[in-house]
Amino acid sequence: MEKFFTPRGIALIGATANQLKGGYAIIFNLQQGYTGRIYPVNPRYEEIAGLKCYPSVAEVPDPVDLAIIFIPAARVLAAVSEVARRGIRAIMIQSAGFAESGQSGRDLQDKLLDVSRASGARIWGPNCMGLVDAHRKFVFSFASSAIWEKGLAAGPVSLVVQSGLLAAGFLIDCMAHGTLGIAKACSIGNKSDVDECDILEHLQADPETRAVAMYLESIRDGRRFIDICRQATKPIVVLKAGLSRGGAAAALSHTASLAGDGALVTGVLAHAGVTQARDFGQLMDMAKTLACYPRARFERPPRVAVITYSGAAGIVSADFVEREGLALATLSSDTMAALKSWFPDWMPVGNPVDLWPAIERHGPDKIFREALRALCKDPGVDLVVLHVFTGGRFAETDMEPLVEIARQAGTPLLCWVLGTRAAVRPFTVRTQALGVPVFREVGRSIECAAALNRPPAITANAGHAEKIGAACRQMLASADGVLDENESKNILAAAGIETVEEVVVAGRDEALTAAGQIGYPVVLKGLSDGIVHKSERGLVVLDIRSDAQLEQAFDRLSPALPSNGRCLIQRHVKGELEFMAGLVRDRQFGPCVMCGLGGIFAEAIRDRSFAPAPLARQEALAMIDRLKSSHLLDGWRGQAPTDRNALADILATLAALGLADGRIQEIDLNPLVISGGRPVAVDATIVLG
Amino acid sequence: MEKFFTPRGIALIGATANQLKGGYAIIFNLQQGYTGRIYPVNPRYEEIAGLKCYPSVAEVPDPVDLAIIFIPAARVLAAVSEVARRGIRAIMIQSAGFAESGQSGRDLQDKLLDVSRASGARIWGPNCMGLVDAHRKFVFSFASSAIWEKGLAAGPVSLVVQSGLLAAGFLIDCMAHGTLGIAKACSIGNKSDVDECDILEHLQADPETRAVAMYLESIRDGRRFIDICRQATKPIVVLKAGLSRGGAAAALSHTASLAGDGALVTGVLAHAGVTQARDFGQLMDMAKTLACYPRARFERPPRVAVITYSGAAGIVSADFVEREGLALATLSSDTMAALKSWFPDWMPVGNPVDLWPAIERHGPDKIFREALRALCKDPGVDLVVLHVFTGGRFAETDMEPLVEIARQAGTPLLCWVLGTRAAVRPFTVRTQALGVPVFREVGRSIECAAALNRPPAITANAGHAEKIGAACRQMLASADGVLDENESKNILAAAGIETVEEVVVAGRDEALTAAGQIGYPVVLKGLSDGIVHKSERGLVVLDIRSDAQLEQAFDRLSPALPSNGRCLIQRHVKGELEFMAGLVRDRQFGPCVMCGLGGIFAEAIRDRSFAPAPLARQEALAMIDRLKSSHLLDGWRGQAPTDRNALADILATLAALGLADGRIQEIDLNPLVISGGRPVAVDATIVLG
Repeated sequence: MEKFFTPRGIALIGATANQLKGGYAIIFNLQQGYTGRIYPVNPRYEEIAGLKCYPSVAEVPDPVDLAIIFIPAARVLAAVSEVARRGIRAIMIQSAGFAESGQSGRDLQDKLLDVSRASGARIWGPNCMGLVDAHRKFVFSFASSAIWEKGLAAGPVSLVVQSGLLAAGFLIDCMAHGTLGIAKACSIGNKSDVDECDILEHLQADPETRAVAMYLESIRDGRRFIDICRQATKPIVVLKAGLSRGGAAAALSHTASLAGDGALVTGVLAHAGVTQARDFGQLMDMAKTLACYPRARFERPPRVAVITYSGAAGIVSADFVEREGLALATLSSDTMAALKSWFPDWMPVGNPVDLWPAIERHGPDKIFREALRALCKDPGVDLVVLHVFTGGRFAETDMEPLVEIARQAGTPLLCWVLGTRAAVRPFTVRTQALGVPVFREVGRSIECAAALNRPPAITANAGHAEKIGAACRQMLASADGVLDENESKNILAAAGIETVEEVVVAGRDEALTAAGQIGYPVVLKGLSDGIVHKSERGLVVLDIRSDAQLEQAFDRLSPALPSNGRCLIQRHVKGELEFMAGLVRDRQFGPCVMCGLGGIFAEAIRDRSFAPAPLARQEALAMIDRLKSSHLLDGWRGQAPTDRNALADILATLAALGLADGRIQEIDLNPLVISGGRPVAVDATIVLG
Repeated sequence: MEKFFTPRGIALIGATANQLKGGYAIIFNLQQGYTGRIYPVNPRYEEIAGLKCYPSVAEVPDPVDLAIIFIPAARVLAAVSEVARRGIRAIMIQSAGFAESGQSGRDLQDKLLDVSRASGARIWGPNCMGLVDAHRKFVFSFASSAIWEKGLAAGPVSLVVQSGLLAAGFLIDCMAHGTLGIAKACSIGNKSDVDECDILEHLQADPETRAVAMYLESIRDGRRFIDICRQATKPIVVLKAGLSRGGAAAALSHTASLAGDGALVTGVLAHAGVTQARDFGQLMDMAKTLACYPRARFERPPRVAVITYSGAAGIVSADFVEREGLALATLSSDTMAALKSWFPDWMPVGNPVDLWPAIERHGPDKIFREALRALCKDPGVDLVVLHVFTGGRFAETDMEPLVEIARQAGTPLLCWVLGTRAAVRPFTVRTQALGVPVFREVGRSIECAAALNRPPAITANAGHAEKIGAACRQMLASADGVLDENESKNILAAAGIETVEEVVVAGRDEALTAAGQIGYPVVLKGLSDGIVHKSERGLVVLDIRSDAQLEQAFDRLSPALPSNGRCLIQRHVKGELEFMAGLVRDRQFGPCVMCGLGGIFAEAIRDRSFAPAPLARQEALAMIDRLKSSHLLDGWRGQAPTDRNALADILATLAALGLADGRIQEIDLNPLVISGGRPVAVDATIVLG
């Protein structure tokens, strides 16, 4: 990978002297900052832009580490062969017309890979905009020269973007608006070979990168991606697009249908310790915030203090603090006293700290410093959001001493600014150069404060496939398709999950006998392969309390039963809460476990949590914590609290099952009734593929 | 009010020649654009800024319609008396030091009102930044001259802001960044007399105002505010701050505690047909969008088509379309065919419409027009979001023909732009001048598209207090404090709400007799004044099926009972769904009705809806529709659908109760069990104050 980022020489196949073409733009861009040798390759020229031009790459002299190819797709394969023969091991293909453009393009792309693999070369692209290194001023891209509009602003955030066009447009926008410094920007296009994982590994070791922002439509190797993220020492923010798509409509189980709208990706990212963004600007704002404070870690949602010159902006900030799940810091009596000494008598001290009346008396510089000093000393304050107005009659706020106060205290400081056009941009550039992120919207400043509360990287011994014993594996091996409720639960019981006591019966008499064994109240269910939603079909009668009631229920049910007439008699479990759990095999991330509230809740609120297998208990507990409704497990209206460890162990076992047998497509435990604090699987479906 | 907005002459009490003071800034600002007579008043000067200065307001000649007062608070009362004596009926007090600064300030403010009321004058302020009219270039304010930085950009949005400082800062920011034109900006400060309702009425009649954006911390007359908004012909967007505050901790009922976090305000605004914003920039972006399309109305969530040059931006847009509750338009076969004719063969046609491959072949201008024309013709497309890149090597997108196509079709068009710094701002200013809003973030563009889907203004005959009969009123009049469950339900039943059959009993024998009358299964509940949460205290036994079980339950319960030992025997209602409803008397909006899912749902999800009384059935139905979980009422897993009219009538009756008796502070119907589709009140509490 190093050869892509710091090549000693670059051959450009597709160089041209036509200044309107990308083949010229690449030369132009290289000449602005690249310090190694540049070798244009094109038999039609002797010289381009003052550089000797070579008729073929075979004739390019050493040193040459990287070949950039920018010629029509049809000629790329021949060029790659030639480049590989020349012994170049890093090939960046910026041409389009491959996998993104249909089947013939896909075939062509596969052929490129055959050639490169045979020669040991790596391919970056095709259909990409290449690479920008703002610290070294390297631009390996045909991107618009507009990128140089204000010079490349070097900074601590590296950007990885899957889409070529967006990469260019977005990068130019970021650069041109100058409010964010970039370390490296990588457009990886079709990622036929070099993918987000390769780049991410490289960036984790890159000294100029302090945080990574990624825009991804797909993740090629989900498991590797998770592993890299979990081991990452630098913060990673991901905007994963396409969350609203998915095969949800065709899913058999709740678990699979719930995975369809992005909850699975959200869970995987949280599990991997990655911050999730939803929009492009937000992605960069979060990344710049994390780049400013890459080591900030909090044991609980950070307690925020807001310093403002406007009560209104303070109140709106407080509303966002609550909405983002942060806490408004309760100020210590020392802090209150310190602030009180600067405030007029009539002004109550609180958080948000409205400094205006104090500013009117003592001037802004002094008051901002005194207030910030007091708040940074306060053990109840985890971070500070500062509101600034700049421009017009207002003296420029001197940020340097403020930044220094916060830095010495180790308190992250974020800034929201209003002001005149002439003043806002220079203020933003200057303040961000001091290492403090500046925002233009109150909500964004608090969202980014919340992004500092990163999901912890958990490293625990996970419950691997080996947990699943031979008997259970054997049962799975001999089953097929959509398993009925009883088969499914037998397998889960063999894996160690507590299931409800039940007997399969074939007629009314057997049903009565079974009920006698189990003891009333019982549940009667029709049992049929492939029928997943029994309740909707009237095949479930709950809470049967006597033989007479059972006979009645049986007679009512039997016309709806399939020809074999098999039923289940089940102990009726009265629980305090209905939970659900499951497993789905995701195309990108492999087996992923789900949990959430069950029964009617699963219909009413899509509050559920996902995580990829394997799962240690600690990880499963974290997954449960991510549920918005997890507080219900602490006991509700005087009910016993749920045994979270027991619940977590079920989730870990589901993960192990998913790893133990690759044929398992879906598992659904719905409901998992919490009875006396213990989870019991009352209904279940396993789908084998 | 007209005298505040278009006075024929203005006296300025507190004028000064000191250019660093606000008393000079007001003169300076007036001189920039105000065309009427300006009369500085200050005995220390003969002349200020070339204007004759008067020793007292008594000596100011006609015409003079408005007095602006900007002197220390202590001298304001005398000045107001003098101004009133001079016969001036519009007084704008920009000085601070009144109600916002404690009790003595509050007293002083009250005295101002006494004087002005006696004279028939109106007071605007105090503690305000006054008024800006960007069309007439009137600035009646001491606001920073930075406001003139780029001239005042006149436009269609009027801004009403409660906070003085924020008004100035925010206005300067908006103006200076020049991406939004303002009609009028009104800073109403302490609104001792002139308040948001007065201004709103005036702006509704103002020809230059096409939409109103309001930042409010409090609403002085909530009922009048609702009435004005419901009758408004121009769109209104409100950022109501302080949503996370409230007396929730002290609330007795669920209804009151659920009102604490902003749901009540959200419900009231929706009921009044007002769009709610959460942040300052968003407030202005929504208002500018509504000002561009003030008459856009949709029968269902609008179906959005996205035209993009980047597949990535298209996918992210689609994710936001789903998140904001809009629909992605399904393109007609005509539209598909039209697009297909410009696309390369390998490129599938869909929505979002990714035009890049077509742009590469046919150039952007032609393709943007053809695509937009096809989409605007499509009966399945309600609005279009267009993505533009501008600057650098990219030719300027010619927006005029595009805007014209959309305008002729009557299709709202919104624009998201990326590009170079040099190009983005001029593009934005130019495009917005054509009447199309431009956004810098994908999410914001879709949020604002969603804002076009305004809550409908419902005008129906509401269920007024007269609905409540004399018997019910009498029962309320003879009750006091926190009523017990039985008293509460008797009153509700008298008002026409269906309640569960129940008998009050005083001992085991009475309980057995009552159960015999009602028929098993029954519920046993301890009955005690002031005990609201009976379940948590173990005072409820559900689903008792026999005398033996009842005796057992009674013996278990009785030690926990209060000395009178009174209990309730209730029919056990097995419902398919637990709902809840209630009433809370809000300080700003009077009696407000609440509904939502009940039982454990009320703990798990705070999904509830509020609306102010009175409520017609149609309004109550709209209120139910606003619940995220309202789809559960359509029948869940084969259950009967809930009778929404019956539910709506209960809500209307609660509203009528709130209007009929001002002593009712809270009513809680929790749960309101839906049984066979009909709502039955199973538990209830009324709190009289």
